[in-house]
Amino acid sequence: MRLRNNPKAYEIMNENSDFVVIEPENLKNNWKDIFDNDRPIYIEIGMGKGDFIFQNACNYPDINFIGIEKYPSVLAAAINKIKQKEKKVTNLRLMHYDAIELEKVFSENEVDKIFLNFSDPWPKSRHAKRRLTSNKFLDVYRKILVDDGVIEFKTDNRSLFEYSLISLNQYPMDLEYVSLDLHNSPENESNIMTEYERKFCTKGPIYKLVARYRKNG
Amino acid sequence: MRLRNNPKAYEIMNENSDFVVIEPENLKNNWKDIFDNDRPIYIEIGMGKGDFIFQNACNYPDINFIGIEKYPSVLAAAINKIKQKEKKVTNLRLMHYDAIELEKVFSENEVDKIFLNFSDPWPKSRHAKRRLTSNKFLDVYRKILVDDGVIEFKTDNRSLFEYSLISLNQYPMDLEYVSLDLHNSPENESNIMTEYERKFCTKGPIYKLVARYRKNG
Repeated sequence: MRLRNNPKAYEIMNENSDFVVIEPENLKNNWKDIFDNDRPIYIEIGMGKGDFIFQNACNYPDINFIGIEKYPSVLAAAINKIKQKEKKVTNLRLMHYDAIELEKVFSENEVDKIFLNFSDPWPKSRHAKRRLTSNKFLDVYRKILVDDGVIEFKTDNRSLFEYSLISLNQYPMDLEYVSLDLHNSPENESNIMTEYERKFCTKGPIYKLVARYRKNG
Repeated sequence: MRLRNNPKAYEIMNENSDFVVIEPENLKNNWKDIFDNDRPIYIEIGMGKGDFIFQNACNYPDINFIGIEKYPSVLAAAINKIKQKEKKVTNLRLMHYDAIELEKVFSENEVDKIFLNFSDPWPKSRHAKRRLTSNKFLDVYRKILVDDGVIEFKTDNRSLFEYSLISLNQYPMDLEYVSLDLHNSPENESNIMTEYERKFCTKGPIYKLVARYRKNG
């Protein structure tokens, strides 16, 4: 997701350092300290305006959530949105970071689950490496996830989902769940929608998969 | 596919032994003799009325095709349909057989490709083992396929396709191609439709995958 540039984006981040992490590298291997507990950590890469991660934090108080966004203006919009919510949560942090560098922020086994929602499809073949489900990113996630950690991925982009099924299969990862029409699947009952998903779900199916790194794979 | 019982089904098979194989076990390890060449052998399991396999035989004269059907009445309908075609092909044989027993008919490495088209979805979980993409059948296919042999599977049944993606992934097989809407994919140009596909493709997407057994998998 991109938004018109917000020149105050960094200012907004700094003003909200109670839930926005300004220097996340300093927390590597110490994220449990910031949450003051040793509960599992779930991260969303490309959190957009934050509806999904905020709602997760509300629904699952026994999990710590971290929303990660590459574009400062998008993160600023999420910060403003979350500040306006009546409900306050202590198990959520946000940060501005590029997914490909996440090894600088999390140590081995520090993350229990990764959410990828409606990631940029990068439709041109020559940009395939930029897709968040390409080998290059799967290498990064593997290094920060616990041994039985999973990736949950959903998208409305058919080509990206086709690509991702093959990419994860060949990595190799184990597919544990696949829905080719999430909103018409029994599992939709517990689905938390993103802003984008709410807006575009009437135009076609939402695809979802859950995958786990194969032991010794 | 099931049809009303045709009491003359076996009679029709016997009368057409020029292209219907009556005792296929006798040909195990000797299929090249019946075709009188050593070209690759592609089989379709559950050939229905035979449009797909017949059209393949027409389009690809350098491949030998074998259509396999479990229900005698369905096979009889296919035989009658193929006999009426103007075009005659020498690279096609049909037979009545149960897929789970195919090891009795083909030896190791005798088959180069297996087509599964619109297989019975067996929707109840307790019948999952009967699905043609279950472990039990993948074990059989593996035994008769060449090392780099592939399975090509298409269906309009979403649940069966979701199940199959997971089943093949976990076997483990390599997914080489996935389309979640074959008729709107570039690869549709070379798609040969089955009777069923022609009839039902307007009701929703046709799913397709191509998978290969993983070496040392």
